[in-house]
Amino acid sequence: MYGIIATWRMALEGISKADSMLKNNKSAADSIEEAIKAVEDFEYYKSVGYGGLPNEEMEVELDAAFMDGDTLEFGCVGGIKDFANPVSIARSLMHYDANNFLIGQGAEKYASRHGFERKIMLTDRAKIHYHNRTKEITNTELKPYSGHDTVGMVCLDTAGHMTSATSTSGLFMKHPGRLGDSPVCGSGFYVDSFVGGASATGLGEDVMKGCVSYEIVRLMKEGMHPQQACEKAVHDFDLELKRRRGKAGDMSLIAMNNKGEWGCATNIEGFSFVVATEKQAPTVYLVNHDEDGKCTFEVASKEWMDNYMATRTAPLIRK
Amino acid sequence: MYGIIATWRMALEGISKADSMLKNNKSAADSIEEAIKAVEDFEYYKSVGYGGLPNEEMEVELDAAFMDGDTLEFGCVGGIKDFANPVSIARSLMHYDANNFLIGQGAEKYASRHGFERKIMLTDRAKIHYHNRTKEITNTELKPYSGHDTVGMVCLDTAGHMTSATSTSGLFMKHPGRLGDSPVCGSGFYVDSFVGGASATGLGEDVMKGCVSYEIVRLMKEGMHPQQACEKAVHDFDLELKRRRGKAGDMSLIAMNNKGEWGCATNIEGFSFVVATEKQAPTVYLVNHDEDGKCTFEVASKEWMDNYMATRTAPLIRK
Repeated sequence: MYGIIATWRMALEGISKADSMLKNNKSAADSIEEAIKAVEDFEYYKSVGYGGLPNEEMEVELDAAFMDGDTLEFGCVGGIKDFANPVSIARSLMHYDANNFLIGQGAEKYASRHGFERKIMLTDRAKIHYHNRTKEITNTELKPYSGHDTVGMVCLDTAGHMTSATSTSGLFMKHPGRLGDSPVCGSGFYVDSFVGGASATGLGEDVMKGCVSYEIVRLMKEGMHPQQACEKAVHDFDLELKRRRGKAGDMSLIAMNNKGEWGCATNIEGFSFVVATEKQAPTVYLVNHDEDGKCTFEVASKEWMDNYMATRTAPLIRK
Repeated sequence: MYGIIATWRMALEGISKADSMLKNNKSAADSIEEAIKAVEDFEYYKSVGYGGLPNEEMEVELDAAFMDGDTLEFGCVGGIKDFANPVSIARSLMHYDANNFLIGQGAEKYASRHGFERKIMLTDRAKIHYHNRTKEITNTELKPYSGHDTVGMVCLDTAGHMTSATSTSGLFMKHPGRLGDSPVCGSGFYVDSFVGGASATGLGEDVMKGCVSYEIVRLMKEGMHPQQACEKAVHDFDLELKRRRGKAGDMSLIAMNNKGEWGCATNIEGFSFVVATEKQAPTVYLVNHDEDGKCTFEVASKEWMDNYMATRTAPLIRK
């Protein structure tokens, strides 16, 4: 069995690439890296990599992580500027015994010294988004992107190895240096090849309050199906935050176990995800959830898919 | 009931301050902040705050975190330079709905704008340590400080509120921008006032692989005594890492529940911790552990205490 699951429709092209690789017995590490890079490289996805939206100083700061489920080793970068593929830098950091999580200029020095591709990640399109946003701001509340956000994935290869990886430009208009959950082990991602993996998108600040990816893997270890584990972890923690703080930020989690079974749960409207396994071609699902946290999925229609890409690539008017 | 527990002997002076405050019904938030600041301010503790040892470029980069067990809100700074009290900056970040975790120059901009005390944190003594270390390096393996390291605390006040906080200069000679577990929620710290809290010191890269502080709080939530929870989490994860990677880094965890009961576990020799409760004056314990992860404590002797401070403050010879 092999499989890969990812947050948001934007992962589809990458998941399709990875699906072909996994089918040809490529490793979960190589496949997931290619899948994430495809999202990073596509400039119309405005929350990941090239074309990602900038912070309040109009600088694109990127976070990414990579974890190996066999060894529990991980690498992360946070707040890195002007490198093409943060996920590849994160992967390369995984193999050291220390210095696995590098941020800011330190991460950039490492990436330069190791020959990673430098690239100006702020696009003209992102500048227009920034400009327009500054015109329309009436309050300073930051929210996750509507419709797409962090790309987070879990992957299983035919040899039974598992990986997880994330990449994001973080909250639009964030404070410089802000880290979310994406580079934080146990919150934005977690994977254990003996069990399975999980990854998150949403308001990282709230996901981190509950180490939600770790919790899902733990529930799967206790025997839960990924769907049950996702629903329980997301719903319980959503209620917990509302009880304590009167509100809970967006949280959408995907998971896959080491049998290729998968699951997803969310506390928002409009979440989509992509899954491909040995038994299933790459498929985009749209998610609905009820008050008890129970989630149902429907395959995205051709109309929805066409509209998605048309909206993402529509000409952008400077206000 | 009130109580506070902290990693390492170096916390004693701070814990004594906090003990007096808690006795007078001061909050867990104010008390733990004062306790951590005392460690940050004392220049002879070379792994926290002023006098902390620098990274490989001879720059002191500091990490700190603060968490409120009532709301699960937290604030963190990572890789911040030249501010006197990182823990206070972390605490102030806790109250926002986003941008709670700031790193590098972004964290410094925030701290400047909010009037936190700037201070050159690299001392002449730390420069000598750096110089001597560069002379004696024969391999590049980084290890946690022998004898002291991150200060991590958990605090319970008479009103039943709980907090956790950490502060560290991280691994001596780390790569610039390296983050350890100290600013990472669920790994370096976690606290839930309905249950209890935990905090870690050791090789952050390995602590993060297992979200060990979160796991201990979770075990306490299932009904375990803090001692049992610490021993189980540390021992199980130590074995897990050895099984997967052939080795496990230093891990020492302290915990307290919301009844003021406490615990500690370690996988190293020479770990010490400090505890004070309504029933117990501030006490330094030395920890022994057996092969099954069972830990026993003895109160530090006067001789050990005298030797500790003499060693820390001894004149340092430049090699």
